[in-house]
Amino acid sequence: MTVGISHARAVDAKVVACASTGNTSASLASYAAAAELPALVIIPEGKVTGGKLSQTIAHGAKVVQVQGDFDQALALLRESSEKFGVYLVNSVNPFRLEGQKTIVFEMLEQLDWRVPDVIALPGGNLGNTAAFGKALDDAFAVGLIDRVPRLMTIQASGAAPFAKYFECGFDRYEPVIAGTVATAIKIGNPASVERARRSIERTSGYVTTVTDDEILEAKAQVDRAGIGCEPASAATVAGVRRLVREGVIATDANVVGVLTGHVLKDADAVARYHLEDVDGRARAGANRPVTIPAELSALERVLTDAIHG
Amino acid sequence: MTVGISHARAVDAKVVACASTGNTSASLASYAAAAELPALVIIPEGKVTGGKLSQTIAHGAKVVQVQGDFDQALALLRESSEKFGVYLVNSVNPFRLEGQKTIVFEMLEQLDWRVPDVIALPGGNLGNTAAFGKALDDAFAVGLIDRVPRLMTIQASGAAPFAKYFECGFDRYEPVIAGTVATAIKIGNPASVERARRSIERTSGYVTTVTDDEILEAKAQVDRAGIGCEPASAATVAGVRRLVREGVIATDANVVGVLTGHVLKDADAVARYHLEDVDGRARAGANRPVTIPAELSALERVLTDAIHG
Repeated sequence: MTVGISHARAVDAKVVACASTGNTSASLASYAAAAELPALVIIPEGKVTGGKLSQTIAHGAKVVQVQGDFDQALALLRESSEKFGVYLVNSVNPFRLEGQKTIVFEMLEQLDWRVPDVIALPGGNLGNTAAFGKALDDAFAVGLIDRVPRLMTIQASGAAPFAKYFECGFDRYEPVIAGTVATAIKIGNPASVERARRSIERTSGYVTTVTDDEILEAKAQVDRAGIGCEPASAATVAGVRRLVREGVIATDANVVGVLTGHVLKDADAVARYHLEDVDGRARAGANRPVTIPAELSALERVLTDAIHG
Repeated sequence: MTVGISHARAVDAKVVACASTGNTSASLASYAAAAELPALVIIPEGKVTGGKLSQTIAHGAKVVQVQGDFDQALALLRESSEKFGVYLVNSVNPFRLEGQKTIVFEMLEQLDWRVPDVIALPGGNLGNTAAFGKALDDAFAVGLIDRVPRLMTIQASGAAPFAKYFECGFDRYEPVIAGTVATAIKIGNPASVERARRSIERTSGYVTTVTDDEILEAKAQVDRAGIGCEPASAATVAGVRRLVREGVIATDANVVGVLTGHVLKDADAVARYHLEDVDGRARAGANRPVTIPAELSALERVLTDAIHG
């Protein structure tokens, strides 16, 4: 192992730990509980959704909220983990990346090994982009697939250091201060930036950005289709839409879009979109409950409207 | 069909609808969206968890909040559905029960057709108890299983009309006004009470109750095991525990407990348990986050405590 992780094995470590915007912490807490390992997560205070935080707490991980952002949390944890015998499971850990590769293997299997033209995914800490490229390399090397799909990573425009790096031909990388409604990818200094670069280069891939408004509209559409996802996942759909518009993805291309988070991971995002006013009124697509007294006539009025209105 | 449902087929109906404490509404909204059918749900105002409400809204169902409880909501909807050509998907619909039967078939298949001694499940509107009995009847009739496990239905003590009915030898049934933290089973007049009675009688089953405190402690334990569930599901675990204590279930019995809702269905229940004081202090098992400044020394103090403390 050449990456800078603690060399302790998880089972020898005194504690398994991660920095997280919420999803990794929920997963770590759950698996650590099942394996009866003590877990500690460090999260940016006030920037993790209620759902993800509740999972992490419920599964019994020690939760440390840092008064800073994800990037600071990860930097602090990396700095102290070796000294304290802490086993880090962020995507700086090569075993984590091996696990993330299985997303691609399962996807290809579900496609009956017919290779899509494009695999699009959201990009935050870039562990998935790194792992997906490695998985495709491996699948091609052993002959499971006969060509490699193009990886397209979508970042939120307020948290897009990788997109900027891509735009300058991977000439100069600069971290940013991240800001986006898509908390799962609100990361300004992705840990896997160089590994992700390799994935994009080797698959003739692409990196682009979408605005928060595009993310929220795409999310509303995914939700309305009966599937549902958290905002970061909707970046995938918004990004594919944009890349088709820009001619990067052909209109007849076979595209797999990866959604990385369930709608319940961020229930508040639904409430904000549908229940809160924008400029003093409801959004065009807002779906607001109506409230009626417990009377038949009131329900019948609603049904009449629903059917004829 | 002898039950009192609209005879319209779903695809002919002007709208598919249900009354719900939240889980049925979320499912209906999702599947109706996927099938491009208009959906309407009627829920008790303020008594559906934020997660379930957010799914229902996100998936585009028309949400009607009634100023009453679930039982009133269902009664109103049943009364008006025939007249308005509304297709009801509550467990008064025999096709709904057929669907719920698959829980048992899948469970038996996963057990490699080795029959457990007991199947325990939470009881609210009693659709699952009704369907499980029917599924076991069917599986036995066609020879998939060579004996029938005992069904044990667990109700919250504040919403236990079926348990009371069972206690008097199914002599006299009386609805109640329901009150429990387990919103998914907060039902005082279950639609499937007679069908559920048949399930209990035919399987030599049992019905019991658990308190809200027992539910919350069982939930904390299921959560802490890395699985997680919503409060109503934890009633299963609390109930099995009680029935073992009371000698109804043998200590060496093979028991399957059915958990019907994910932890994210009620994230607020986690926050209430772990973050809110009881009698001025935290619960014994409360897992509270700590907050630190973005400084290495602060994290190192936490790690020292976590490892040695």
